[in-house]
Amino acid sequence: MEPLLNPAAVAVVGASERKPMAARLTRFLIDDGFTGAIHPVNPRYEQVHGLPCYPALDRLPGPVDLVLIMVPAGQVAEAVAESARAGARLAIVLSSGFAEVGPDGAALQRELADTARRCGIRVLGPNCQGLLYRPAALTATFSSGAGLPSAPPAETGGIAYVGQSGALGGSVLGMAADRGVGLTAWISVGNQADLTATEATALLLEDPAIRVLACYLEQLPDGAEWTRLTGRAAELGKHLVVLRSGRSAAGQRAVASHTGALVRSGAAFDLVAERSGAVLVDDVDELLDTAIALGGPRPSDGRIGVVTSSGGAGGLAADQAEPTGLRLPELDQSTQDSLAPLIPPFGSVANPVDVTAQVINDASALGQVCETVAADDAVDAVLVLLTTLGGRTAEQIAESILRASRACAKPYVVAWQYSHAEIAAPAGRLRRAGIPVVSTSSAAITLLSRLLPRHRPTVAPIAPPGSAAHPPTGTLTEAAGARLLDALGVVRPRGALATDAAQAEAAARDLRGELVLKVQSPDVAHKTEVGGVLLGVPVAEAGAAADRLLRAVRTAAPHARIDGVLVQELAPPGVELLVGAQGGRDGYPPVLTVGFGGVTAELYADVVTALAPVDVAGAERMLRALRGAPLLTGFRGSPPVDLRAAAAAIAALSQAAAVWGDRFAELEINPLIVHTEGATAVDLLLTGTPKDRG
Amino acid sequence: MEPLLNPAAVAVVGASERKPMAARLTRFLIDDGFTGAIHPVNPRYEQVHGLPCYPALDRLPGPVDLVLIMVPAGQVAEAVAESARAGARLAIVLSSGFAEVGPDGAALQRELADTARRCGIRVLGPNCQGLLYRPAALTATFSSGAGLPSAPPAETGGIAYVGQSGALGGSVLGMAADRGVGLTAWISVGNQADLTATEATALLLEDPAIRVLACYLEQLPDGAEWTRLTGRAAELGKHLVVLRSGRSAAGQRAVASHTGALVRSGAAFDLVAERSGAVLVDDVDELLDTAIALGGPRPSDGRIGVVTSSGGAGGLAADQAEPTGLRLPELDQSTQDSLAPLIPPFGSVANPVDVTAQVINDASALGQVCETVAADDAVDAVLVLLTTLGGRTAEQIAESILRASRACAKPYVVAWQYSHAEIAAPAGRLRRAGIPVVSTSSAAITLLSRLLPRHRPTVAPIAPPGSAAHPPTGTLTEAAGARLLDALGVVRPRGALATDAAQAEAAARDLRGELVLKVQSPDVAHKTEVGGVLLGVPVAEAGAAADRLLRAVRTAAPHARIDGVLVQELAPPGVELLVGAQGGRDGYPPVLTVGFGGVTAELYADVVTALAPVDVAGAERMLRALRGAPLLTGFRGSPPVDLRAAAAAIAALSQAAAVWGDRFAELEINPLIVHTEGATAVDLLLTGTPKDRG
Repeated sequence: MEPLLNPAAVAVVGASERKPMAARLTRFLIDDGFTGAIHPVNPRYEQVHGLPCYPALDRLPGPVDLVLIMVPAGQVAEAVAESARAGARLAIVLSSGFAEVGPDGAALQRELADTARRCGIRVLGPNCQGLLYRPAALTATFSSGAGLPSAPPAETGGIAYVGQSGALGGSVLGMAADRGVGLTAWISVGNQADLTATEATALLLEDPAIRVLACYLEQLPDGAEWTRLTGRAAELGKHLVVLRSGRSAAGQRAVASHTGALVRSGAAFDLVAERSGAVLVDDVDELLDTAIALGGPRPSDGRIGVVTSSGGAGGLAADQAEPTGLRLPELDQSTQDSLAPLIPPFGSVANPVDVTAQVINDASALGQVCETVAADDAVDAVLVLLTTLGGRTAEQIAESILRASRACAKPYVVAWQYSHAEIAAPAGRLRRAGIPVVSTSSAAITLLSRLLPRHRPTVAPIAPPGSAAHPPTGTLTEAAGARLLDALGVVRPRGALATDAAQAEAAARDLRGELVLKVQSPDVAHKTEVGGVLLGVPVAEAGAAADRLLRAVRTAAPHARIDGVLVQELAPPGVELLVGAQGGRDGYPPVLTVGFGGVTAELYADVVTALAPVDVAGAERMLRALRGAPLLTGFRGSPPVDLRAAAAAIAALSQAAAVWGDRFAELEINPLIVHTEGATAVDLLLTGTPKDRG
Repeated sequence: MEPLLNPAAVAVVGASERKPMAARLTRFLIDDGFTGAIHPVNPRYEQVHGLPCYPALDRLPGPVDLVLIMVPAGQVAEAVAESARAGARLAIVLSSGFAEVGPDGAALQRELADTARRCGIRVLGPNCQGLLYRPAALTATFSSGAGLPSAPPAETGGIAYVGQSGALGGSVLGMAADRGVGLTAWISVGNQADLTATEATALLLEDPAIRVLACYLEQLPDGAEWTRLTGRAAELGKHLVVLRSGRSAAGQRAVASHTGALVRSGAAFDLVAERSGAVLVDDVDELLDTAIALGGPRPSDGRIGVVTSSGGAGGLAADQAEPTGLRLPELDQSTQDSLAPLIPPFGSVANPVDVTAQVINDASALGQVCETVAADDAVDAVLVLLTTLGGRTAEQIAESILRASRACAKPYVVAWQYSHAEIAAPAGRLRRAGIPVVSTSSAAITLLSRLLPRHRPTVAPIAPPGSAAHPPTGTLTEAAGARLLDALGVVRPRGALATDAAQAEAAARDLRGELVLKVQSPDVAHKTEVGGVLLGVPVAEAGAAADRLLRAVRTAAPHARIDGVLVQELAPPGVELLVGAQGGRDGYPPVLTVGFGGVTAELYADVVTALAPVDVAGAERMLRALRGAPLLTGFRGSPPVDLRAAAAAIAALSQAAAVWGDRFAELEINPLIVHTEGATAVDLLLTGTPKDRG
């Protein structure tokens, strides 16, 4: 992959001064100071932008590593083959007219991919906007964004963009220019006929010049590839920020089962990313601002110290923080005492710390205040709110914040609510030092909340004992479900299968309270419709009831094979949970979902997901993360229920899901009734392999 | 108030070239072209900024309308008195050192207010940053934001800012300058010793030059004043946008009762604002961008047509719209047919409409696409997403959007995700025409969702019949509650009061099903704790049970006065609602809250509020707006319940609350059980006047 980023010689096939995009491509390449050879190729011209232009790749004066291709789609495959013959290891196809235009283009794209494979050359694109790699002064894109002024690479925080959309990639370049931040690398992968976004990201991850990868993805990469990539980033101590488009549409497609409907689409993608510390964002500005923030330290928790030059701005920020989970802790008395001499009497030493407009007269005091607040053990991050402060004062303020930030490895975020033009230079200095400067307090708060650590509980898979090592095949009868629950060590209602009245009577003798009788038949999907369920049967009447039930079913469904009648105790009352696992798909691990049973979970979408498996502590953390958790821990006079027993059942289910991997689609306990002591799995549902579900 | 905005002569007391703020104040006044007389006043100087400087106000060469005061706090009251003597009708006190610094300053502020009242002069401030009024070329502020370049008033959309925070006001000026939008007026009210933010807003509302008022408030104005102001804005067809700080802290203070805890603090403020069409926002950039948008039409509903130059950007916007209630409707076939020739084959004529990067070559096609999408009846607003488009192309694009927007009175919002610097001029042109240009699609979507009409159901108060015209006084016994429910026409469980076993037996004869017996005593707050409640009592055992209950209570609470035992039917099962009304306070009308009973409402904060009274249709709309509404309309096999009966009960309660106004604190039906037919109010709670609650 080396020639992609550090070529010794580049050829531009389809070079032109007249076609705007082709002209820009060559122009940028020349103007940005690329030191290798640049060979325009076009039979129509003798010269392009003052460089000798060659009629074809086989007429170049020397070898070439990288070929940029901008000829019509129909000529691209041939150009790729010629590139390979000319010795190039990589071709960037900037031409469009491939899979994005329909079946004919898709055929051209297949031909292109085949040619590349056959000739042993890698291809970026087609329909891409190329790449930028500042350490080699290589600008191989026609994106206007690449022509904007930006910081020199030495001053960047080592940020790279990789994305499927060149247009949004251009937006990132434009926003970076506004922010005074240069990108070290930028790759638009286009249609990914050969090189994928994940491959490009993996390549850049290994580059010592790059610390933060900002990715824009429209399709989910293969799960195994994504797992490797995010894991490798964590291993290298580098940061990934990911913006994913098409969640809502994907969500609709993903609706498949009761549990599935509540899980965000692509949950496994998100969970894999978050497990390794990757940050997920929702918009393009967040992608860049988060990447800037990752040049500095991350908060270890969500307690923010707010330092403001305006009381009003501080109040707004407190309002905005409340729903995000960020908190404004009380500062230690000693902190407040240290702040007092730095702040005028009409300011405030409480959090938000109001330094007032006095900052205009003494910018260094602001830095001392920030440093003092950051040093407080109750504070995980410092949020600085600035208003009408520009010009020379702005320079001093930025300097003073920079100095303060070096004193303590806690993150700083600045919301500078003023004219961009007035603060461009000082804000740029802060950003290049890993201190994001955004234009509103709400943007700052969103940014900080994204950086919080995600505690995703996972443990190594442990093979569940005996029969649970493999998913049961065929339809899961209640008896088979019971065996599976027993194998997993999950408590279920006591009971036994009876084939006639006498057996039912015998079975009932061991049981207590009111009983439930249910017909067991592989041919009966809806038991109640054929009179196959009896509730509230006293122990003494179990025999007669079984008899009555069997007769009713035989009348209603004369051809059904009947295994017998399940004679069961009723589960004691408690809080009903729904515990589901979705089988792994597309290389992703199974996903566990926990929520409340009944309509509540559905209406309020109160579910928590995690990658399977989780251990008991992890499962308990999931339960506590439910908004309705007080229903479990005791609320308005209701007693707390046995969280640990519920967590044990969830962990056991998750272990099976993890071991089974992609050999099942859905495994669900619905409901898991959690009592003041213990928990009972009333019903277990299993559907087959993911492929079964199309 | 005329002299405040159109003075013939202005004096500056404390004028100086050496003190930065005072120097800026005089400088701005001179530089911005104010045509009236400007008289610096300061005994130390002969001249300030080239103007003759006078030793005192009584030495001016002519009359003065407006005096700007920037002397130390201790000298301000005297300066105000002198201003009045010099003939001024208004003084703007820019000095600080008043209520914001503590008790001594507060005393100075009281003295200042007293002086103003005594001398018959109005005062803006103290501790304010002054004002700007472009039609009179009056710049009477030291805010650096006033020194930034901005559009001339003739090109503004008639936007004014009024706010308590001068610092955030400066932010607004800075952001307006970036956006190429000039503010017609800008008033910083500071400590409001005399003139309040609402008074200043009311003044500007009457100005024909002003169409949109952007207000920043830290304190809630008096309810009657706020009601008048918002009503007057609606009457004049002008727009209010309001940013309020301190919601979270105020929310904590407002926590008082079970119902109250779930209602947003300041709910009445918000509801009064929304009733008249005012728009509430959460941050400073939104305040300005929404004000810009209000220069154009508002959407009549939330169906947006998205036109994008990048498929990726369109996908992101669709994701972001989903949770906000905005929808991307399918476009009519005829619309899609009209779009087809305007869009390249690799674009999309479905919503989001993807015009692709071809827009670079043909900006006018973009306008035609926008116009076609806007003309579709399924579309209420057009969202245009632009990416890497700058320079000359950007100019053409803006022109083409402007032309399209004139064809149809539907709102346009543009998210231009590129370098600000590259698009400043064309974006400014769009903004001045009432088309907001924001930098991300999520900001555009938030903006559009804020502009949606709020359907707040209200009807004129109707006095409820007879005894319900006045709130009952003293503790509301269950019997008095029953009388009140009867007067309101709300169904309650049947039953009667019995003082002994014989009466209980007689009462039970008229009743059906299992009964509930409850002791009635003004001295027993918690009935169950003294054995004062019996559930599931068969009709035949009512006498004996009453006897047993009375004896238990007399033993447990020997000194309690006992009115008797209420013998009642159990309410039939159904869905439990909680219906509460909070009495009017501080001039605001009572607020009605509807949610589900039990723990659900609390944990998931699923409540809907409205100003009381509502009619039955309005109450039904509230119920349908609950996230849990499917529980009422039939969900997962449960039957629909009697929405209309529930709505009738809610409307009746709201009528009482409206008539009672501020003569009660809380009135609550908890629960209102809604059956498949009818609804029963099981318990009615009333607490006294708001003053009772401190």
